[in-house]
Amino acid sequence: MCSKKSSKISAIEAAQDRIRSSRSDKIDVCELAQSIIRGETEALARAITLIESNNPMDRPISHSLLYEVSQLKASKDDALRLGVTGIPGVGKSTFIEKLGVDLIEEGFKVAVLAVDPSSQRTGGSILGDKTRMEKLAINENAFVRPSPAADALGGVARATMEAVLLCEAAGFNRIIIETVGVGQSEISVRDMVDVFCLLLIGGAGDEVQGIKRGIVEVADIVVVHKADGEYITSCKDTASSYRNALHLFPPPLGGESVDVICASSISGVGHNDIRRRIDSLVDSWRKNNFFQNQRLGQKADKMQSHAKELLLESKMQSQSSKADWDALASKVNSGDISPFSAAWTWVNGDQQ
Amino acid sequence: MCSKKSSKISAIEAAQDRIRSSRSDKIDVCELAQSIIRGETEALARAITLIESNNPMDRPISHSLLYEVSQLKASKDDALRLGVTGIPGVGKSTFIEKLGVDLIEEGFKVAVLAVDPSSQRTGGSILGDKTRMEKLAINENAFVRPSPAADALGGVARATMEAVLLCEAAGFNRIIIETVGVGQSEISVRDMVDVFCLLLIGGAGDEVQGIKRGIVEVADIVVVHKADGEYITSCKDTASSYRNALHLFPPPLGGESVDVICASSISGVGHNDIRRRIDSLVDSWRKNNFFQNQRLGQKADKMQSHAKELLLESKMQSQSSKADWDALASKVNSGDISPFSAAWTWVNGDQQ
Repeated sequence: MCSKKSSKISAIEAAQDRIRSSRSDKIDVCELAQSIIRGETEALARAITLIESNNPMDRPISHSLLYEVSQLKASKDDALRLGVTGIPGVGKSTFIEKLGVDLIEEGFKVAVLAVDPSSQRTGGSILGDKTRMEKLAINENAFVRPSPAADALGGVARATMEAVLLCEAAGFNRIIIETVGVGQSEISVRDMVDVFCLLLIGGAGDEVQGIKRGIVEVADIVVVHKADGEYITSCKDTASSYRNALHLFPPPLGGESVDVICASSISGVGHNDIRRRIDSLVDSWRKNNFFQNQRLGQKADKMQSHAKELLLESKMQSQSSKADWDALASKVNSGDISPFSAAWTWVNGDQQ
Repeated sequence: MCSKKSSKISAIEAAQDRIRSSRSDKIDVCELAQSIIRGETEALARAITLIESNNPMDRPISHSLLYEVSQLKASKDDALRLGVTGIPGVGKSTFIEKLGVDLIEEGFKVAVLAVDPSSQRTGGSILGDKTRMEKLAINENAFVRPSPAADALGGVARATMEAVLLCEAAGFNRIIIETVGVGQSEISVRDMVDVFCLLLIGGAGDEVQGIKRGIVEVADIVVVHKADGEYITSCKDTASSYRNALHLFPPPLGGESVDVICASSISGVGHNDIRRRIDSLVDSWRKNNFFQNQRLGQKADKMQSHAKELLLESKMQSQSSKADWDALASKVNSGDISPFSAAWTWVNGDQQ
């Protein structure tokens, strides 16, 4: 072990040590962890590439790395995770760039991660987002990273969430997660952030086309974006409509109302209000323990859902299990058996 | 095999036959299935008690029964599944009673099932709902059944969904599923019905308190209930507010708008509109295939989620696995390891 703190999960560590040492020609986990803790972004980028790997052999090394990093990192827990969603064209990149630059001016270190379940593996190219957020990408207090590919082992959510942990260990204390694709990505991001921010365009009338049903209701802050020039009035109208509408929907669990804020990332209007609102939400949630409880709930959910996913994947590795599954699924589709009978038979069939 | 149709899942059937015959002193699956197909409600009630059982030995018999029933049942697929949710006090029982009686007058056979994840096993008493829906309970074209207990093997959702299949086989073609508890029950019911109906009270201002966030957005029809006497005006105001609000939210996937209808289950106002709206939604969804696709999607989701649940349960049966889980979960809570590392170690730890 290279970490200073003692550890108790000795069996796991021993196994990880064996694997780590057998691959030590490739990656020195201790050194990499220490480089991350020192805030070296090149090491951080390499580490994220490792955790995004779809090679099963890399998983134990990733776990060792994550464990080392958690043991080495300073215990101050001031990092905030912010989700940003909205339809294509709403200006998520310009919004995040403005927000990120402002946060850096306030003294924070900002990491931007994207979640796009449709993204393809591109051999580690990180050009995409860097060209989208030029000012942030060159700022030494920022770290911009595109989405892991959809074939990351365990999925995009796992890879993104572990990247968050690495970024926090590297000293980034404002983590912005952007949803790029549509569909499930909004839900999975909502479940990994502290504050979830929905961007809408004013006056378009179809500002929620393409957003997954149920997502508007779980936003903590609604931003009517591109409120500049000729659009200022229509944005104000849209904001007013949403303010009226939102009290008809279930209130947020943390006990604060949902603010609707008009903003422009060109003129900068609204951005101060948004940052202040984020801070006041978090202050309030820390006081009533919602902040801490939401994080604990997210961890428990992720551990359970990932364990289920891995168990299913593991059983699917067998050719005959996969064939049984397909045969049963086809019986379910034709109405011959219930989906529950099918699942039960698939899991227990060989125990009868 | 007692069914007329041939079957191909011979291995499963052979196993089920063995178990069935070993317990044939207790339950004659073929006879029970035939009684259900003949529409005998006493047999239906006994069958639902069987599928709700929390005794693992009863599962193979349940599967045999469900299979027999699916093979014997008429192929006409005219049953509609309708979910009804709303906060306590909104009048769900009186609403369902009025809706059910009207549907029976239109020539349908109506089954009412409740979903309450908090309900305790009561030894098969079905008094609760029968006294709540007096007219329906005594009608020979109705079948009223309370929620399965929370300890039903595989959970309330599994037991309820299999009860739906049995009710449909018994000739009931309007299945109404009522959410009784709060929290997750709305979500699970939304995922097992064709049309999801949200009941609100007019003018209360807190009509959505206690509803899970995200649920209003996934309703297909919103009913402002108790629109009678002095409340008519406030109900109309509330309906108008929701009509204005709902176009600000993502549109339903089926391509139809969400109607907001004022109704009273005492005066009967609005009920004709609600039934006509349900019919027109289903007509439209059958034409654009949304109806069929939603059902297929629900089946696939249920098979996968139930398989995952069973795999997790199965692994948790081992004392040492359970202890490992608890130890890892506590490391996750304290931030020592990521939830994903914990899940991976729990699933793969012994393979290293």
